[in-house]
Amino acid sequence: MRKILLALTASLISASALAQDDNTANAPLTIVIHGGAGALAPGRYTADEEAAFQAKLNEALDAGYAILESGGSSLDAIEAAIVLMEDAPIFNAGKGSVFTRDGKNELDASIMDGSNRNAGAIAGVTNVKNPIKLAREVMENSVHVMFAREGAEKFAKERGLEFVKPKYFHTEKRWNSYKAGLEAEKQNKESSLPIDYKWGTVGALALDANGNLAAGTSTGGMTLKRYGRVGDAPIIGAGTFADNNSCAVSSTGHGEYFMRLTIARDICAQVEYGGKTVDEAAQDVIHNRLENFGGDGGVIVLGPNGDYAMTFNSAGMFRGVKNQAGVQEVAIYGE
Amino acid sequence: MRKILLALTASLISASALAQDDNTANAPLTIVIHGGAGALAPGRYTADEEAAFQAKLNEALDAGYAILESGGSSLDAIEAAIVLMEDAPIFNAGKGSVFTRDGKNELDASIMDGSNRNAGAIAGVTNVKNPIKLAREVMENSVHVMFAREGAEKFAKERGLEFVKPKYFHTEKRWNSYKAGLEAEKQNKESSLPIDYKWGTVGALALDANGNLAAGTSTGGMTLKRYGRVGDAPIIGAGTFADNNSCAVSSTGHGEYFMRLTIARDICAQVEYGGKTVDEAAQDVIHNRLENFGGDGGVIVLGPNGDYAMTFNSAGMFRGVKNQAGVQEVAIYGE
Repeated sequence: MRKILLALTASLISASALAQDDNTANAPLTIVIHGGAGALAPGRYTADEEAAFQAKLNEALDAGYAILESGGSSLDAIEAAIVLMEDAPIFNAGKGSVFTRDGKNELDASIMDGSNRNAGAIAGVTNVKNPIKLAREVMENSVHVMFAREGAEKFAKERGLEFVKPKYFHTEKRWNSYKAGLEAEKQNKESSLPIDYKWGTVGALALDANGNLAAGTSTGGMTLKRYGRVGDAPIIGAGTFADNNSCAVSSTGHGEYFMRLTIARDICAQVEYGGKTVDEAAQDVIHNRLENFGGDGGVIVLGPNGDYAMTFNSAGMFRGVKNQAGVQEVAIYGE
Repeated sequence: MRKILLALTASLISASALAQDDNTANAPLTIVIHGGAGALAPGRYTADEEAAFQAKLNEALDAGYAILESGGSSLDAIEAAIVLMEDAPIFNAGKGSVFTRDGKNELDASIMDGSNRNAGAIAGVTNVKNPIKLAREVMENSVHVMFAREGAEKFAKERGLEFVKPKYFHTEKRWNSYKAGLEAEKQNKESSLPIDYKWGTVGALALDANGNLAAGTSTGGMTLKRYGRVGDAPIIGAGTFADNNSCAVSSTGHGEYFMRLTIARDICAQVEYGGKTVDEAAQDVIHNRLENFGGDGGVIVLGPNGDYAMTFNSAGMFRGVKNQAGVQEVAIYGE
């Protein structure tokens, strides 16, 4: 099993030195991913389960990185990585999405192109297999940024996206969590819900050979959510942000705090206006601002020079990075 | 008729000098409002129409300011001002909302408390009389920030908000614009649509005796919108933002640009991290960033010391300000 290499608070590799040795770009090709943050303490998963998570994270990294290596765009790389995670039942996105209070699955996603700040987002779709593809379709083939619910599904139909029956998203593990959550709530008014009911997301960032950043995030949202709740994942500036002039961010955590703190934009604003590194900005936002608000979760951040951070204040965060400097690391727990 | 006092690009009054003479607060009580930006060139409205707009703007300012003067909160002040504008058929919010492509009215709103960065937002409601009240209800009586469509309406019902029949939102003027828009689109694929099809919003900011900022925004969205389009008005960081540590913003304009540029958060980030005044930040975001993207619209901005800006790059913006320094101004056109 791969050794856990990443420190609890953040990993940062200054990769800009590579630029001089690289004749295809000024910064190293890089992909960074997450598969959600939560109460992921060692012992939570069996060795087999850990291996499955790590294999899928590596598979997503490899798929995205292969695209970057063949000269593909950062958008194509993050889409490929996120689709793999959406199709895996082990993450709370796509296939493995959690259930709403009504026992349904309602999926959110967003994507942003750092080269021109184009963006697309969708909230509350129930039958589109890969929400990240729909978010990209909104970005590239509509004059809008965000569509919700039935309207988003109508647009998906018109654009020819792949549909599935809602039961495609029904996994036994999530269904059992849903039933347990309902029961816990009945007994104790939410207080006995497992803390990680509030999060679970997948996301990816990439830096391509043209120096373009991209960010994407996809989720099934919060277990037992209701009232058409929209979390941070489809909100540009909260769950997702990308701008070649500052950085790219994908968030995972208790979404309401990420929305109030506009976490993705705040990190990049601290880089843009405050002169911070991506690591310093991520540290401030997660360990000062989010923590002071009582919120939990994490972010992945990638700068235009290839510097990256994977920062969280929860016990763990599924995460990984692969870059042109030969780094390939995945991790689950904090250390 | 009140003389138009405000300059095209921005008005800024440094009001902090007042603080020394005021034994109830460190900064002057202030309310700033807008009723949408657009192709508002002189000659667009008759003198009677102008008078009606100005009267309603003054009424909203007076209602909000009276609350501040009696020691009420900035949240109560902006809610009162926005409700008055929602109930008036002349603004694209509440009663006077524009029509979707399907000939319906779908309303969005958001609100934010600068003292604790609590926030509430709703998207796509069709039968709640005052969307700003529902956004506040989400903020204060749910653990969430944002609800969409039928879910938001279900929450409204549970909370006892006032409902209306959808036909309440049917005004003759907007219906005629809708029919004209459909026709223009049929002929010419959107290019012949009047430029102000893309905006129209109301918003308010206030600074109360406790030094707390609040911001709120409400809209019927974009004429002919479809696919459950969500614009910037209900997005925290795009249409609305408030933080006592930096500033409060409400936006109006071509929402998709405001979302991609996270305009409300960007202005306050430039104040927070870039050391800019609210006027300098608003100028940069509207006249550099938004304009470079080809977007149009405007913002109102209010700082914790009472400094304010009303900045737009469209021909005009319905706007007004009233404060403890004795300023009371409303304006429509640029100058």
